Amino acid sequence: MAPAPRVLLFDVFGTLVDWRSSLIELAEATAARGSVQADWPGIIDDWRRAYQPAMDQIRQGGPWRDLDSLQRETLTDVLARRDVRLPAAAADLLVQGWRQLRPWPDSRDGLERLRRRHVTATLSNGHLALLVDLLRFADLRVDAVLSAQLAASYKPEPTAYLTALGLLGCRPQDAGMVAAHGADLRAAAALGLRPIFIRRPLEWGPGVPAATAPALDGVLVADGLGDLADALGC
Amino acid sequence: MAPAPRVLLFDVFGTLVDWRSSLIELAEATAARGSVQADWPGIIDDWRRAYQPAMDQIRQGGPWRDLDSLQRETLTDVLARRDVRLPAAAADLLVQGWRQLRPWPDSRDGLERLRRRHVTATLSNGHLALLVDLLRFADLRVDAVLSAQLAASYKPEPTAYLTALGLLGCRPQDAGMVAAHGADLRAAAALGLRPIFIRRPLEWGPGVPAATAPALDGVLVADGLGDLADALGC
Repeated sequence: MAPAPRVLLFDVFGTLVDWRSSLIELAEATAARGSVQADWPGIIDDWRRAYQPAMDQIRQGGPWRDLDSLQRETLTDVLARRDVRLPAAAADLLVQGWRQLRPWPDSRDGLERLRRRHVTATLSNGHLALLVDLLRFADLRVDAVLSAQLAASYKPEPTAYLTALGLLGCRPQDAGMVAAHGADLRAAAALGLRPIFIRRPLEWGPGVPAATAPALDGVLVADGLGDLADALGC
Repeated sequence: MAPAPRVLLFDVFGTLVDWRSSLIELAEATAARGSVQADWPGIIDDWRRAYQPAMDQIRQGGPWRDLDSLQRETLTDVLARRDVRLPAAAADLLVQGWRQLRPWPDSRDGLERLRRRHVTATLSNGHLALLVDLLRFADLRVDAVLSAQLAASYKPEPTAYLTALGLLGCRPQDAGMVAAHGADLRAAAALGLRPIFIRRPLEWGPGVPAATAPALDGVLVADGLGDLADALGC
């Protein structure tokens, strides 16, 4: 096996935290207060699906905007498409809800164990202000909070990974990218980072087929961060 | 009293960690292995004094270089001026020594207490790669590791403070700058941050007159981070 990477970069939404159940719960509580009936699980899933296309305009060179701004726009679209009228204050609350996502049960302890022998950092498409609030909410500790924002870009653009590595003074071959998503890992692996796939079978809810590990050279696959810590001998 | 700031930015060298005694100890141990006799306390003090002028060329618009690069240059100058010949590997070790500075006794617990009610971040002239290693070495936890590097500048240039606040989504009036140095606090206060002066009477060693708190409107003065946590009700 290749030597364990010195630096581990972590995707956040879906990999460290459970966006779906957290946001559905928040949406249902918020809507209930305003007596708004709607298929909230369906809306949250649509909202999340609108996230990648929304970033494309920036990946293609448009002026950088943060996730609060993108998420507000896509939420407005999704609600309009489904003809759901939500007061502006309630929509604000949902956008802010991305700062209050529950960690997966193994995330906190797993990160603590992995920090013992690796430099750990987030590398998320969330912006720093959002990530700082989210990591405080979820009580997750990493050595550095890094974001594609620092490259004024979004993953999987290469500059997002290379900027983070540059700030950490780390060569690609000394780093691993930890994510529950193939596209993230394919982009990282193409730059020489080691791909580490975390199985999160509940990311899109129960009964939905789980994402499978991407077929990449040297990919490491783990069932959560505790399992990864075991595999890396932490 | 003004409301406590939501965000606290912390200077690092001298404010959170004791650079002087750590570096003298490292220099003496390194030199002893190579049988190099020299006035190491004097050399370390000269080295530290060379730090501000070295950053001036960058503050005045020169291409940004990190602290490793500046410190190597100034160390070479200081050793040459004193006619001390240190093998290159030993000089490397001293430059790397800025990643292994002991925290002041109150820094670790004080930061933990302050994190409970404030978003905490470093704002140092050290670059991120150095800060990450240093915070790991000293076991200091902050919510975000920020550096003047993210503005490709050095404190006390306004852009260093404003870039950090922008990344945290924080207005100047909602932040405090925590430092043991007047120049840092004067620059921060001029932008609207609350100046918080930490007394570190041993920064330059025993018997050296301690820096006094700058005369700034609303300045808060504390004897260490435990005292600051008390003052802010954490």
